[in-house]
Amino acid sequence: MDKNKTGQHISHQFNIELNEIRNRVLEMGGLVEQQINNAIKSLVEGDTNLANAVIQRDMKVNAAEVAIDEECSQILARRQPAASDLRLVVAVIKTITDLERIGDQAERIARMGIRLAEQERPKNGYHELQNLGEHVARMMHDTLDAFARTDIEAALRVAKEDLSLDQEYDGIMRQSLTFMMEDPRMITRMLDVMWIARAIERIGDHAKNIGEYIIYLVKGKNVRHTSLEDMEQELQD
Amino acid sequence: MDKNKTGQHISHQFNIELNEIRNRVLEMGGLVEQQINNAIKSLVEGDTNLANAVIQRDMKVNAAEVAIDEECSQILARRQPAASDLRLVVAVIKTITDLERIGDQAERIARMGIRLAEQERPKNGYHELQNLGEHVARMMHDTLDAFARTDIEAALRVAKEDLSLDQEYDGIMRQSLTFMMEDPRMITRMLDVMWIARAIERIGDHAKNIGEYIIYLVKGKNVRHTSLEDMEQELQD
Repeated sequence: MDKNKTGQHISHQFNIELNEIRNRVLEMGGLVEQQINNAIKSLVEGDTNLANAVIQRDMKVNAAEVAIDEECSQILARRQPAASDLRLVVAVIKTITDLERIGDQAERIARMGIRLAEQERPKNGYHELQNLGEHVARMMHDTLDAFARTDIEAALRVAKEDLSLDQEYDGIMRQSLTFMMEDPRMITRMLDVMWIARAIERIGDHAKNIGEYIIYLVKGKNVRHTSLEDMEQELQD
Repeated sequence: MDKNKTGQHISHQFNIELNEIRNRVLEMGGLVEQQINNAIKSLVEGDTNLANAVIQRDMKVNAAEVAIDEECSQILARRQPAASDLRLVVAVIKTITDLERIGDQAERIARMGIRLAEQERPKNGYHELQNLGEHVARMMHDTLDAFARTDIEAALRVAKEDLSLDQEYDGIMRQSLTFMMEDPRMITRMLDVMWIARAIERIGDHAKNIGEYIIYLVKGKNVRHTSLEDMEQELQD
């Protein structure tokens, strides 16, 4: 009876720890989402103060990754989790790596934004990058929601959304190329647009990765190299 | 006595499993190294057959990641490793993610190589990309060596080498931009060169990541966001 009580206590305490980890990932994710939004805003508005704030705050993202990683290692060592608890810890270890890389891309966008702020602004004010950036920010938000609710349907929607983001990205690349060829004086500026579009597109890839970890977490299946159709099939099984 | 024997047996069996995992990572790394070399070769020689072989073989890289990932999860669940054994498993989980992404970049280079093979070849035969590619292939080789010997000095050298790779990459980017501006008919081809250089540079980043996991594995310290100087200090402690 006494032993059972201790067992329950440990399990209860363990659940608190797992919830704590989950919350810290969501907190880190919220910070990263804010970094994306601010990086895009600083770029579109030519706001170098905001861009510098994004660059500064990337350290917080990095610190969050190191701290959560450490906690995961401690949980693995002390709690020796099994089954879905173990999958949660492994999924968290992978998720924070992608979150940290998303943070790096946001920082990169902010740095390029500072460079662009010194140049003459185009008439459309980088409208196409704003759209692409808002698209990926929504994807990121949905990914974190899917993680919070361990919702595999939502995670699958994120993977599908990445296709549509890629198409939008391809459109920007084609358009930038056309502008360059029509007017070679535009080459440098269009290259900057291309690099920023690329950074945003990479964020979409990372969000998709996180969606895949959520599916792994729930279904215990690695779907990383699976087509969307097969993934949908998988979720119905 | 009997119990002790069993204990030794389990521990012995566990060591075999850990060695097995280590070997499978090295095998996967060897495959990825070959993919890099072949991707660069196919590009430089305009060999579309070889490029197609690289694209085909990326499936093997993906399959290796899924299989090793699965083995790591099983080891975590069955063996409940602690201390350095646990760090090895966590380092392997992270390492294979980067190896798989390197494989993706090699595939991307091969795909762009096929596109370039249809176009007129430049006089220098993409010499600068060949150099950059050979540079990153050496880095990759050294990284795998460092992993095989869990040699943190060698891992630190990989991190340093990434700086020199980045400089070489920056040079190619500046040169390509100059060519574009001088002769706008070169825009498309120079953009291709830039994207390929970028893919090679990304491989260097992943190799550096793996070097950092090796340092974590040996020292139990996450050095991901540490400067090279601080890293060196760390290794002397």
